[in-house]
Amino acid sequence: MTAPNTIRRLNAASPNFGEQLDHLLSWESVSDDGVNQRVLEIIADVRTRGDAALVELTQRFDALQVTSMAELILPRERLQLALTRITPEQRKALETAAARVRSYHEKQKQDSWCYTEADGTRLGQQVTPLDRAGLYVPGGKATYPSSVLMNAIPAKVAGVAEVVMVVPTPRGEINEMVLAAACIAGVDRVFTIGGAQAVAALAYGTESVPPVDKIVGPGNIYVATAKRHVFGKVGIDMIAGPSEILVVCDGQTDPDWIAMDLFSQAEHDEDAQSILLSPDAAFLDAVAASIDKLLPGMEREPIIRTSLAARGALIQVSDMNQAIEVANRIAPEHLELSVENPEQWLPQIRHAGAIFMGRYTAEALGDYCAGPNHVLPTSGTARFSSPLGVYDFQKRSSIIHCSAQGASVLGKTASVLARGESLTAHARSAEYRIKN
Amino acid sequence: MTAPNTIRRLNAASPNFGEQLDHLLSWESVSDDGVNQRVLEIIADVRTRGDAALVELTQRFDALQVTSMAELILPRERLQLALTRITPEQRKALETAAARVRSYHEKQKQDSWCYTEADGTRLGQQVTPLDRAGLYVPGGKATYPSSVLMNAIPAKVAGVAEVVMVVPTPRGEINEMVLAAACIAGVDRVFTIGGAQAVAALAYGTESVPPVDKIVGPGNIYVATAKRHVFGKVGIDMIAGPSEILVVCDGQTDPDWIAMDLFSQAEHDEDAQSILLSPDAAFLDAVAASIDKLLPGMEREPIIRTSLAARGALIQVSDMNQAIEVANRIAPEHLELSVENPEQWLPQIRHAGAIFMGRYTAEALGDYCAGPNHVLPTSGTARFSSPLGVYDFQKRSSIIHCSAQGASVLGKTASVLARGESLTAHARSAEYRIKN
Repeated sequence: MTAPNTIRRLNAASPNFGEQLDHLLSWESVSDDGVNQRVLEIIADVRTRGDAALVELTQRFDALQVTSMAELILPRERLQLALTRITPEQRKALETAAARVRSYHEKQKQDSWCYTEADGTRLGQQVTPLDRAGLYVPGGKATYPSSVLMNAIPAKVAGVAEVVMVVPTPRGEINEMVLAAACIAGVDRVFTIGGAQAVAALAYGTESVPPVDKIVGPGNIYVATAKRHVFGKVGIDMIAGPSEILVVCDGQTDPDWIAMDLFSQAEHDEDAQSILLSPDAAFLDAVAASIDKLLPGMEREPIIRTSLAARGALIQVSDMNQAIEVANRIAPEHLELSVENPEQWLPQIRHAGAIFMGRYTAEALGDYCAGPNHVLPTSGTARFSSPLGVYDFQKRSSIIHCSAQGASVLGKTASVLARGESLTAHARSAEYRIKN
Repeated sequence: MTAPNTIRRLNAASPNFGEQLDHLLSWESVSDDGVNQRVLEIIADVRTRGDAALVELTQRFDALQVTSMAELILPRERLQLALTRITPEQRKALETAAARVRSYHEKQKQDSWCYTEADGTRLGQQVTPLDRAGLYVPGGKATYPSSVLMNAIPAKVAGVAEVVMVVPTPRGEINEMVLAAACIAGVDRVFTIGGAQAVAALAYGTESVPPVDKIVGPGNIYVATAKRHVFGKVGIDMIAGPSEILVVCDGQTDPDWIAMDLFSQAEHDEDAQSILLSPDAAFLDAVAASIDKLLPGMEREPIIRTSLAARGALIQVSDMNQAIEVANRIAPEHLELSVENPEQWLPQIRHAGAIFMGRYTAEALGDYCAGPNHVLPTSGTARFSSPLGVYDFQKRSSIIHCSAQGASVLGKTASVLARGESLTAHARSAEYRIKN
């Protein structure tokens, strides 16, 4: 048996399981008044002073000795140079992943549609790409080239003409893998700026940074707060919470594999959540033993240990039906169905960001290169939102083309309803189109 | 010529037209600290005290002498009763509109998809409806049965099992058309509550009100502020700004029709915006004359007059190409192409909520009964967002099912990339699936 403080054990049959689960899942982003105030000041500064503010804020926050905006622009040639500075193996891995991500996302592209009614009236929707998208890429510690692929490729597949990337380079540190990924993904322009100032620049534009229509990509509390504030001026993706995985296992997968799958989520950060459901109590024991055996060898052991103790759980369920019920209650970001015949459970799964089917589909495969996006709804938001996709970089315009006959018929209905709402200009505008 | 204070005249050829247009379009929602604070208190109260808080707040804000939550629930039979209390003509108009809206929206429904690769790996997306949606309907002055149809029908077409409507009934005032529309649209439950307290109840649930997954529908500043605060816990639709129309006319439509089309937008409220673009200066004069002729006869003349003076404009452009360029710059909620051959311009239009094509397609027809949704992106947000639709009530789960062979191949790429990001648990989880 594992030491009780490594990871908690729960049983769905216990009378207070509902409360225990609620407590385990509870996570609310803290909004910090101090952060909020500083972010508002930074946004106002960038709106007022443009490039000059960006240069100063980058000097201050990124400890960069720059004197002009020109030093904060990376030309396309610099991205190409990065391709030669990573290993051939890394370059091949990025290119393989990019090709698979592109191929999968091309199937998400939505087309305009239209139909004609008997009287000649035509109705439909015209689907168009955004003009310009902004991609925030964190610098410093957590530099994820895979995120560059996952955010930029759907935009380019959608047909976005210009993808603008911002990435801070604190103390001049540049991640060559990130630049190489940007090159492969087809990013059009890169600015080495970050934080709330980069978000403000993308939303409002400066002399050098073009304003974008939507900002996507992960970031720290300053970046997330800034994104909330510019929402409405531009589109944003979801504000992500900590990453989570829910593994459902029938007890027949190698417990070492499952332990490592749980670690792969827990290693992200101390708030990450790894939960395993199984009807097999002996299997839960075996996974607990694997956890204790494998943990000491892990490079990020302290983070994994903190995360598992704070937010992890091994939960015994009565059967697979109860497992699916709990999974729907959690609406996990990542759901791994490590069971014999995963297809049979799929129709019952109502809420999950991504579903990893069968014993071979480790979440890590999906994180990097299977094809689907790794930007997924967290903290139960899979109840109402979707993976990042091509559809996030397309929008629709309704098309209404009434024939003279169609307008005459519709005008009568519109007139009655408009008068029922006391909107008589609406009514009269419709009535002009009624034939005598 | 119209009196200069009825509606302003601009010319796109003037050197400072860009600035004039920016000024005309400028509109930022004011965030009010007082409102914000009261809304946060109301949300906290409803989360803590549930039904008891709802009853008290409804007594206070809606001047209703209720003593229990039971009095704030309208059973389905009450909705059916409403059908008999409106005129047969009104009932028929609602039913006609509902049938057309339903038929159009059925074409938006998105299906799950999946494909299998050569090695047996399967990838796709499972599309599912939200479990439960909440619909806010304003009470009092602005009661719009058409909004009930436009918000509830897409949810039901998506397959949302339960649509919960909230509508305040200040001093007991109930709008029978609104209830009849709810009945026709298939709304499942109705609570006569409103304001921030209704939004909080829908987001967090109370003893009587079930928590929903997404809240849609228009409301005042308290409702909009509450929606912003509960965003993340639940999904929300866009926070709408004032309504706007941009009419592009070649000068060959009856100027009375165009004047009335501009009025139909201006009558919504003092902040609404009506703009006309035409290459024909004499036609702009004729529309100005029609405005002055028709305005005195309008039921909502004061609102129309204020709106046109504050935010309206008749703008001369050099030709249709310039008109389309300005339209894309504005990204209007409603774009009326009152021209001879509107189809020819459609491919050039990049941003608009809805496009009303030809001389017969008055915006009012689309507002009520053509079929497309009247909930549209305002204030230039058509650059990155879409009409409300069935897709807003569906969400996607990625499906990844690797074959043993597929996992072995993908595992190698994932391993290289994970190690490049120093995420070694990810790497080792992938490596377990590589065949020796």
